[in-house]
Amino acid sequence: MTTHAYGAQASDQPLEPMNITRRAPGAHDVQIDIAYCGVCHSDIHQVRAEWAGTLYPCVPGHEIVGRVSALGAHVAGFEIGDLVGVGCIVDSCQHCEDCAEGLENYCDHMVGTYNGPTPDAPGHTLGGYSQHIVVHERYVLRIRHPEAQLAAVAPLLCAGITTYSPLRHWKAGPGKKVGVVGIGGLGHMGIKLAHAMGAHVVAFTTSESKRDAAKALGADEVVVSRNADEMAKHARSLDFILNTVAAPHDLDAFLTLLKRDGTMTLVGAPASPHPSPGVFNLIIKRRSLAGSAIGGIPETQEMLDFCAAHGIVADIEMIRADEVNEAYGRMLKGDVKYRFVIDCASLAL
Amino acid sequence: MTTHAYGAQASDQPLEPMNITRRAPGAHDVQIDIAYCGVCHSDIHQVRAEWAGTLYPCVPGHEIVGRVSALGAHVAGFEIGDLVGVGCIVDSCQHCEDCAEGLENYCDHMVGTYNGPTPDAPGHTLGGYSQHIVVHERYVLRIRHPEAQLAAVAPLLCAGITTYSPLRHWKAGPGKKVGVVGIGGLGHMGIKLAHAMGAHVVAFTTSESKRDAAKALGADEVVVSRNADEMAKHARSLDFILNTVAAPHDLDAFLTLLKRDGTMTLVGAPASPHPSPGVFNLIIKRRSLAGSAIGGIPETQEMLDFCAAHGIVADIEMIRADEVNEAYGRMLKGDVKYRFVIDCASLAL
Repeated sequence: MTTHAYGAQASDQPLEPMNITRRAPGAHDVQIDIAYCGVCHSDIHQVRAEWAGTLYPCVPGHEIVGRVSALGAHVAGFEIGDLVGVGCIVDSCQHCEDCAEGLENYCDHMVGTYNGPTPDAPGHTLGGYSQHIVVHERYVLRIRHPEAQLAAVAPLLCAGITTYSPLRHWKAGPGKKVGVVGIGGLGHMGIKLAHAMGAHVVAFTTSESKRDAAKALGADEVVVSRNADEMAKHARSLDFILNTVAAPHDLDAFLTLLKRDGTMTLVGAPASPHPSPGVFNLIIKRRSLAGSAIGGIPETQEMLDFCAAHGIVADIEMIRADEVNEAYGRMLKGDVKYRFVIDCASLAL
Repeated sequence: MTTHAYGAQASDQPLEPMNITRRAPGAHDVQIDIAYCGVCHSDIHQVRAEWAGTLYPCVPGHEIVGRVSALGAHVAGFEIGDLVGVGCIVDSCQHCEDCAEGLENYCDHMVGTYNGPTPDAPGHTLGGYSQHIVVHERYVLRIRHPEAQLAAVAPLLCAGITTYSPLRHWKAGPGKKVGVVGIGGLGHMGIKLAHAMGAHVVAFTTSESKRDAAKALGADEVVVSRNADEMAKHARSLDFILNTVAAPHDLDAFLTLLKRDGTMTLVGAPASPHPSPGVFNLIIKRRSLAGSAIGGIPETQEMLDFCAAHGIVADIEMIRADEVNEAYGRMLKGDVKYRFVIDCASLAL
């Protein structure tokens, strides 16, 4: 099937309309009419070859929601017309220890939704800035939100699970004081999710202007991290910190806010390294600095169901596909609250 | 009581004989005739004011073993003549959450065995390079090793517990592949302890010449970390790494050897920072970089009992007190296998 898409032909080219091909559904495949696709910062890194190994044409997009439009013969559990989502993963080895535990995100052979290896033309996967996608049923998620919220569900497939998974893994919940550093696409989801899990949420931002917004998202307290006095009030008090800031910054300022046995988990990888964290700050309170990548497929379904039950969606700004280059420019300036979502109906033109 | 000791009057002075005063035992105090005291790298840092805040005269030493020679009226559980030890901690607040959990090592008011605040003259604690010490019973450990091993037990009080505690906390044991980086005072204990706990132990050294010694200590495999091919064979395979190297080095070379959810724990703080570890290496396998400081008093007793049951002591070289300045010089060149221990009888002269 030929389908309209939006992508780039080279790292120095803007995204433009293109036609791409999707395979006919195999026995275990689900074909999806894409309704909306979120715009993730990773999309910019990949399409502009800021990360190594970008293959062209590059069609980004891994926050995909839509409706099932065709099913392979052996697909169980989905019906035509179902509301479904696809996140960052469209394949994995399916037999390693990670896959067996439902942690396909840590499989050495995980295939990303775009720029991953595939036998399909053109030899690498093409993402969700398109009208249709065909995905193995294992990697298709069920959406139980009301259809009216569908566009705002899209960012849950990456920003949602990337924050939900570490919050669950490090046991955010009642009685825990949880910090969320950065109030952007990921951070705004982290605040909403940690709040819904019952944690006492402290949001950290460099910007005084985001104080009210962070409270509205669910933060119990907001700290402007440039204010040393405000920071000092939280010294040695946090059980867990979810750090969503990918720009290089002083990790020690946050590590010292952790209690004994606390962990700060990074979910963004900076292009150049952070200043080296002080070992002493780790040693004196048996603290940990960790990382976390997206989440597995079962946990992504759990996150979607949790969000449906708690009425959680992303805060979004809808755009047409032909506005995506402009949206990238605004994202790089931090000018979005908090996620752009492409209305894929705009690709039909 | 006046007692002979060995210490320094200033950061640029060698250690020399001196007389110091010990308090009369209070109701909960144990007075100890010190038989042996291990020489820890921390002693050098403190006495030479390489760490901030050294107070003079400085008498180092926190790997203390000896016999009980007097008891306060309310001391229960010790008798005169008992073999006992004192490690890095001689006091703490005794009422915080850390103290309540037996993690006095993480108490904000922990008092170190030397250079800590005390009402006793001269206003700061003086360590184990001396003939006697008086310590609150809570911080006195029972030694169940044969008396003939007493000198080699001394280093367990710091090098032993500093490696035992993280190995236990991160669950070294049967079925686990555990790395130990560095084969010095701490590392040689880490290898012995991890082996005795039943883990598969991989020792990492920069020195080909230490290969046989590491095997003799209990390593199942030895990797020369400068050899990239040897390192690559262990990629993504270790459950836990105990890193005892305080000199700045490339942490990524070891982080990439951890499995998913693996942790590398640092027990040495370098004077200048390590090169900043790559966040990507943390993210892709949900790895952690952690720190750990000594261990609590109950765990120190557990470690001593574990070592007694398994016949574990440190490998030591005995010296007289007047050889300690020379010993410091040799330690700085790595010329000791693996711990100097002062025979405190030599202080009687």
